[in-house]
Amino acid sequence: MELLKQRIRQDGTVKGNDVLKVDSFLNHQIDVALLEEIGREFQRRFAGCGVNKILTIEASGIGIACLTAQSFRCPVVFAKKSQTKNIAGEVYTTKVESFTHGRVYDVIVSKRFLGPEDCVLIVDDFLANGAALDGLIDLVEQSGAKLAGAGVVIEKAFQPGGDRIRARGVRVEALARVKSMSEENGVKFAD
Amino acid sequence: MELLKQRIRQDGTVKGNDVLKVDSFLNHQIDVALLEEIGREFQRRFAGCGVNKILTIEASGIGIACLTAQSFRCPVVFAKKSQTKNIAGEVYTTKVESFTHGRVYDVIVSKRFLGPEDCVLIVDDFLANGAALDGLIDLVEQSGAKLAGAGVVIEKAFQPGGDRIRARGVRVEALARVKSMSEENGVKFAD
Repeated sequence: MELLKQRIRQDGTVKGNDVLKVDSFLNHQIDVALLEEIGREFQRRFAGCGVNKILTIEASGIGIACLTAQSFRCPVVFAKKSQTKNIAGEVYTTKVESFTHGRVYDVIVSKRFLGPEDCVLIVDDFLANGAALDGLIDLVEQSGAKLAGAGVVIEKAFQPGGDRIRARGVRVEALARVKSMSEENGVKFAD
Repeated sequence: MELLKQRIRQDGTVKGNDVLKVDSFLNHQIDVALLEEIGREFQRRFAGCGVNKILTIEASGIGIACLTAQSFRCPVVFAKKSQTKNIAGEVYTTKVESFTHGRVYDVIVSKRFLGPEDCVLIVDDFLANGAALDGLIDLVEQSGAKLAGAGVVIEKAFQPGGDRIRARGVRVEALARVKSMSEENGVKFAD
């Protein structure tokens, strides 16, 4: 997605060799007009797959999921990172290791909102090691829902998550695939 | 907002005398079409105030903020609940006590995304004790931005946050004000 790559080149900043900061438009401040275009692109790529639910994980996936759900005209479900008093009853549960935060989260989805009648598109901001995506796929499999695939905004293609998850047979669409990056030379995209 | 009150009557469930579960359409599964209407209503109420930024707090405010920002054609900034490795540099910081989670969070916003040039509308899903709203107002005040006011989807008007914050001179617009609720009699709205 050329518009997104341009924006990453313009406003993204690289720290070290593996941190790409896009917090001015994607995951702290949010450019909603850009997210609308991202949502339309996911809809174009997964058109005809029967998607009736968008699944993501809090927090930075939620905006992307909502704007994508507008294009699909379907609801969002976001997986929650820890059990709260407000979630009663039965939940699907899995564990996700966050490399950013250096900890493991319990991640849950209420069984009321995901089941065999659903066809799910997972969306998230980043795909690197694939830990969050693994967890979300696990929740979909537990629910018996059909998995249409996963749409990620930015894939760090030099990290193993994307290849590993595609090798499992999951369709993964990344709108910008970063081949390499460095503070000196910025971001290089895969074709 | 009548559409919202109808939805709360239809799909909300009351636990005890103070928990209103709206997780089937607002803060776990999200009805994006309803959020579009909520966003339009906030825009109608705060039209002409010069709002150029929507501020919320992760996680359940983010969807509401994004759909509201569409109506205002402006960016969202969401305050983050704990410092992550990905946020470098200077931040505004405050503390927020979560009654749902029984703990106190450090809440931060990067100084790059809020400043004296901004006119901010705060949005959130619930207003009860007002702890989250206090924290967000504190962040706006630290930044020197103008505060247009706060838009909350559901106010528990029998808890003290709304009255207290209005008494400080902050304009608070709630789309559904719950006067009382119980498992036996459901939800009663204030006029």
